[in-house]
Amino acid sequence: MPAALRLDAFRERRAQARPPVFDAAFRNEFEALLRWRRDVRRFHPDPLPEALVEELLDLACLAPSVGNAQPWRFVRVSDPARRAAVIADFERCNASALAAQTEDRRGLYARLKLEGLREAPLQLAVFCDEATGQGHGLGRRTMPETLAYSTVMAVQTLWLAARVRGLGLGWVSILNAEAVAGILEVPPSWRLVAYLCLGRPQQESDLPELERAGWQARTAACRRVLER
Amino acid sequence: MPAALRLDAFRERRAQARPPVFDAAFRNEFEALLRWRRDVRRFHPDPLPEALVEELLDLACLAPSVGNAQPWRFVRVSDPARRAAVIADFERCNASALAAQTEDRRGLYARLKLEGLREAPLQLAVFCDEATGQGHGLGRRTMPETLAYSTVMAVQTLWLAARVRGLGLGWVSILNAEAVAGILEVPPSWRLVAYLCLGRPQQESDLPELERAGWQARTAACRRVLER
Repeated sequence: MPAALRLDAFRERRAQARPPVFDAAFRNEFEALLRWRRDVRRFHPDPLPEALVEELLDLACLAPSVGNAQPWRFVRVSDPARRAAVIADFERCNASALAAQTEDRRGLYARLKLEGLREAPLQLAVFCDEATGQGHGLGRRTMPETLAYSTVMAVQTLWLAARVRGLGLGWVSILNAEAVAGILEVPPSWRLVAYLCLGRPQQESDLPELERAGWQARTAACRRVLER
Repeated sequence: MPAALRLDAFRERRAQARPPVFDAAFRNEFEALLRWRRDVRRFHPDPLPEALVEELLDLACLAPSVGNAQPWRFVRVSDPARRAAVIADFERCNASALAAQTEDRRGLYARLKLEGLREAPLQLAVFCDEATGQGHGLGRRTMPETLAYSTVMAVQTLWLAARVRGLGLGWVSILNAEAVAGILEVPPSWRLVAYLCLGRPQQESDLPELERAGWQARTAACRRVLER
């Protein structure tokens, strides 16, 4: 269904809708969803059904956005030559990141698997349209970065929606954003926010892969709340 | 329970845990959660139970983060003088935003309610610690903005977790980020990402408030996926 028709159907359904109340069972499952979401780098290569991809993108568009600007733009990367160019850019950036490691961490860094670019059946580059007129600038005069932040919330929404369907998502940030924009030939006002790999994960865990690999565990430091 | 003990308890539970499978009923409820999350500006002023606030912050810390850096830092703003200073900063920024509106939108802009700073019982300023050593810089050499993006994902996680519990959240971005950092006397490496109002919402809707107010409806533009 074209996006405009889908939006009409949504508005129709909405007219009869009532606010949901989430019970304890849902709360517990929602917590499990947060605990078992992972940044995935090991995928099965089997392709995802088209309807599932469409559904995930529809859900991502329900993310909050500053001024209701909906600045997220999705590019589906399927062409083998473009995928290879993204991999080459990752390899350049990662070689330079490896060289910048301290002596004591370099060996561990080299052993980390940091992306699933060769296996992931679905790859989405997510851009923020910095020139969008939607929202009429509301809410982003003093903090223009909220436009990119809105795009990030679409990514996080997509991430959770994918995990609900048993899919893994991995965010690859070891890339040169301008190079990727060039590889994908996007409009000049689009800025790369995230490059995402999606597919069925090879394993499930409620511990971050970087923790399992001994790179960085979660800590409680972020939970010290300042009172003011 | 102190944060470190909570983390231990989590690790203990984890050892016996199995990957969850989310059924169709959960998928539907999760979609309702996304559809009924709103940016809320009209709150009941009754305070939130302490245990609930702690629970929400625990869940927010399950957000993804680049290199597992967990750079989010929460400041709970309760002091009346500091709250008044934040309101004064909002009013300055909003007056200047109003003045910058085009003639035809100025009247509508002036009628919008853009924050619940006077009523919201819980107010959290969320910062990103740009100087954190956690994560050892992994994943943010070429895209250092992913540290702030990680903080945004904690906000989005908190937003959904609050809505699951029937609470509304409103993100106020019409603020001078440096002024707010000064009002709240945070460490110099902390950068303001979001100022959040939380509380029981006065109304529920599956349509954005800016759409109901005639400012900006959702459009299908963001769903045109480029194929590359």
